Amino acid sequence: MKRVRLTVAYDGTNYAGWQVQPNALTVQEVLDQCLSDLLKTPIHTMGASRTDAGVHALGNIAVFDTEARMPADKYAFALNTRLPEDIRIQKSEEVAPDFHPRFCRTIKTYEYRILNRTFPDPTRRFNSVHIYGNLDIEAMQRAAACLEGTHDFKSFATENLQVTDTVRTIYETRLWKEEDMIRFQITGNGFLYNMVRIIVGTLLEVGKGAIQAEDISAILEAKDRTKAGPTARAKGLTLLHIRYPDEEVETVK
Amino acid sequence: MKRVRLTVAYDGTNYAGWQVQPNALTVQEVLDQCLSDLLKTPIHTMGASRTDAGVHALGNIAVFDTEARMPADKYAFALNTRLPEDIRIQKSEEVAPDFHPRFCRTIKTYEYRILNRTFPDPTRRFNSVHIYGNLDIEAMQRAAACLEGTHDFKSFATENLQVTDTVRTIYETRLWKEEDMIRFQITGNGFLYNMVRIIVGTLLEVGKGAIQAEDISAILEAKDRTKAGPTARAKGLTLLHIRYPDEEVETVK
Repeated sequence: MKRVRLTVAYDGTNYAGWQVQPNALTVQEVLDQCLSDLLKTPIHTMGASRTDAGVHALGNIAVFDTEARMPADKYAFALNTRLPEDIRIQKSEEVAPDFHPRFCRTIKTYEYRILNRTFPDPTRRFNSVHIYGNLDIEAMQRAAACLEGTHDFKSFATENLQVTDTVRTIYETRLWKEEDMIRFQITGNGFLYNMVRIIVGTLLEVGKGAIQAEDISAILEAKDRTKAGPTARAKGLTLLHIRYPDEEVETVK
Repeated sequence: MKRVRLTVAYDGTNYAGWQVQPNALTVQEVLDQCLSDLLKTPIHTMGASRTDAGVHALGNIAVFDTEARMPADKYAFALNTRLPEDIRIQKSEEVAPDFHPRFCRTIKTYEYRILNRTFPDPTRRFNSVHIYGNLDIEAMQRAAACLEGTHDFKSFATENLQVTDTVRTIYETRLWKEEDMIRFQITGNGFLYNMVRIIVGTLLEVGKGAIQAEDISAILEAKDRTKAGPTARAKGLTLLHIRYPDEEVETVK
């Protein structure tokens, strides 16, 4: 028996998120079905990140166990010929039998893309959110920097009864504008439900001047969802990669 | 009566190209229908570039004449609320009554995007073509440079009986790699049928070593389509902008 780890990229536009659920098509369901067809036995993967409906990924992680003899690195090729065009395995490799994708010490990096111009660009509509009007990039950068460090992010999470500990550590934020696209990257040891999208919704309020960058600390301290900005739309969000302890992040090429 | 010029962006994925044709949905047909609904009278636009099925545009140009009182700059807003998400007007403005979008002295710039990595990226599948394996970027740049100037491009055109003069001038080519994306931009005073796609197909052969950069001149001189490379897929191609005499190119913001 071996444990195989898959690095999974997908366009989340047409899926109800990662996690298998009744009455809605999910990325995990499609992947499990392709794996089961390939190995002619039911396979259930375990995913690292349960991305929401409409959220994209370049490097989500899934593992499964199999008795099959196929070398682990061949799964990427074998699955990519079976998967629909909006899901592609980027890498497959054997990992230790006790490797768990939701290991508590993972470090995740997300990117959110904001297209800041007068009119939408149809060719970039699936993985960015269009915002018209001036945004104060420097203020957004200052606000993002205030989120770095270990904080209680209760103000930046949709109420989720399963989670009681709302303290997380943000290692780094980066926000910059490339031509007309604002790119925001955030790296942390865990993210609460909708946390990145609420952070982005708040940064947009800062960009518009409705919230001051200097107010971010007070919003964190309030531990009150209503003090933060709205939840930004899912389609601008992409899970870039997940890093495990003692592993280098590898740019998939 | 006034003549209104529209700068039109579209994702060509779901269209049989720009030009109205029977039994297939085109960008022009959708635009004409929206304009006719808006102005409550049949409107037929005249387009600058008849992009092929699957080709995208950020700045195609269309004009129409109208007696309506609406200020020309309002058409962009009015049409964008009616158009489907994959077509967006970027600018609307009044032009001289004798302005013709297919004016012979236009200068067009196209971009072709080649995603050069091991596996496809689902989030960029609609506007780039995935190529696996090493490509010699420097050789592709040298080959592209050989196309600059005034040449007979017969070898780089699909046979088209309507065109007898196959001499065109390429003012500039640019080819560079940004992370895993090869971007190729080409600016010229006109392009024959499939010319950009055949040029890209040929540059890819050069990148793979199947054609030498130094052979481009001989391919031009042969005036023989069979000497050039295959026609690259439509989905990697975007019409960036069209410049008219005495007008600056404006980056739409």
